[in-house]
Amino acid sequence: MSGAVTRKVTLLAGGVGGAKIAEGLAALPDVALSVIGNIADDDDFHGLWVSPDIDTLTYSLADVIDRNQGWGVADEGHRALDTLARLGADTWMSLGDRDFGLHIYRTMRRRRGDRPSLIARDTARAFGIKAEILLPTDDTVQTRVRTDAGWLSFQEYFVRERCAPEVRELAFHGLEQARPAPEALAALAAADLIVIAPSNPLVSIAPILGVPGITEALRQSPAQKIAVSPFIAGKVVKGPADRMMTALGERADAVGVAQRYSGLAGRLVIDHADAALADSIRAQGMTPACSAILMQSLEDKTRLAREILDLAFAGVPAEAGA
Amino acid sequence: MSGAVTRKVTLLAGGVGGAKIAEGLAALPDVALSVIGNIADDDDFHGLWVSPDIDTLTYSLADVIDRNQGWGVADEGHRALDTLARLGADTWMSLGDRDFGLHIYRTMRRRRGDRPSLIARDTARAFGIKAEILLPTDDTVQTRVRTDAGWLSFQEYFVRERCAPEVRELAFHGLEQARPAPEALAALAAADLIVIAPSNPLVSIAPILGVPGITEALRQSPAQKIAVSPFIAGKVVKGPADRMMTALGERADAVGVAQRYSGLAGRLVIDHADAALADSIRAQGMTPACSAILMQSLEDKTRLAREILDLAFAGVPAEAGA
Repeated sequence: MSGAVTRKVTLLAGGVGGAKIAEGLAALPDVALSVIGNIADDDDFHGLWVSPDIDTLTYSLADVIDRNQGWGVADEGHRALDTLARLGADTWMSLGDRDFGLHIYRTMRRRRGDRPSLIARDTARAFGIKAEILLPTDDTVQTRVRTDAGWLSFQEYFVRERCAPEVRELAFHGLEQARPAPEALAALAAADLIVIAPSNPLVSIAPILGVPGITEALRQSPAQKIAVSPFIAGKVVKGPADRMMTALGERADAVGVAQRYSGLAGRLVIDHADAALADSIRAQGMTPACSAILMQSLEDKTRLAREILDLAFAGVPAEAGA
Repeated sequence: MSGAVTRKVTLLAGGVGGAKIAEGLAALPDVALSVIGNIADDDDFHGLWVSPDIDTLTYSLADVIDRNQGWGVADEGHRALDTLARLGADTWMSLGDRDFGLHIYRTMRRRRGDRPSLIARDTARAFGIKAEILLPTDDTVQTRVRTDAGWLSFQEYFVRERCAPEVRELAFHGLEQARPAPEALAALAAADLIVIAPSNPLVSIAPILGVPGITEALRQSPAQKIAVSPFIAGKVVKGPADRMMTALGERADAVGVAQRYSGLAGRLVIDHADAALADSIRAQGMTPACSAILMQSLEDKTRLAREILDLAFAGVPAEAGA
């Protein structure tokens, strides 16, 4: 690879879908990857600070993720949770023993006053990850979901209630007061390419973009900007984004995604199944590009990542002398 | 057992040796047992509050103790500690996953402001323990051990350094300011029999007796008072009490124990191997009673417990009509 041009890529990512494209980008030898993850589904469990989306990124990029369920750590046990259940604690949030080790570490360092960004960075390094895992803010932002039964924390809605209740309203506690993390601003400013992952636009990407200063930094960045739709024929691969967008009066398809990201990214990668939506996406001011966006194998992830790079830098030689 | 007289027994106990006689007493159907445990070897690990002696009592009385090593929980895993090690934490304190569940629970409740005595009580109940597990104080008392390399926390000395350094001095941080827990005072006042377990007199029993008000409550109690020597022929079964007593200029045998407990308990149960020390023990103002004090099986523990009861209540019918 001597003579390869390294592209600085900054990815905005939620949990599972974000982690998949992060893996694809991280596998490209000509990419220096920074991932700005979502912290708005963080919550306190048993006095420990749990950061599900950041941990999914970390475990995925470290290749210790449980590939069967897409989250959590492989070779996991649940002995700590067994004790907590015996002691009468609510244990609907299935936290494994290896995972608890990270939550214990994170909580210890947060209590000591360390910046959450530094904790995430050190965790990624300890797990041998070359990509930078960044937080949009070091402040606490928490998604709240209004259902007919009242307001729920995101994990109550997502895990305890399994996304069953209709979503009437979303709120992000602390978002307006949050200050952007300097590392995230720097990664947006320095990027050659900014990618918005095929994550839930409403609860994964919105609370990243909503941190004051983050959207401005993205807009002002000279980088190429490409979003990837999480929809395939009006359905998302995982999670409640489709139902949630419908419930909140948005179009639950790639056009709805284009409405969200218009003005933030120039291109939207959509699935071949959604090719018929191309004109509607153009009408939103985005340039569609068709691909196969279902990512199952590492090959799927790497291929999609390469296609995104090629879209961004078409006509620009990826290797010197090519 | 109809008509049985129930004896209220309050045991002062450290870790492993204390837990063994606690098991024996708890197995007697005519005993209502309260155990005042040692909290001076408590410490913070990874931001969690660990209470080794109280947990050894809890796990022993709940019959979930790891019988091979005498502490910790059976069927234990170490996945959380693996993660912490990966993250660069010191992991010389071998904390298992089931055990972590309890430390997480305890820490959460302490942070919430709950009294440690109530946490210990609720933990014991959740583990199905009939005996009361009490703390001498709800304040923090911590044993410090001076060695030639400086002051160590008790767990640093005991676990990390495996008791290898010579002990030059002991200190109990917070002891003079500690307030006695009301439940401990009540259990001493209400007892028919107070037993001092065959635990380390210097680092297990001393920091219980040293909580202001505890020794006075013991002295003022109308209960029978019996101590059990941890020595067998000048050696202790487990732990550093013998070397520690020698290093600090005390007699490292049952006579040294009698010197410590004289005036606090009327009788001292010693091993048959130490029968020759009987006169020296009498010279300390204690009445010796010979027994087999090595406790390996539950039968050993129950037999010794029964002998202690018989010593206390000789001539007093244990059952109505007997």
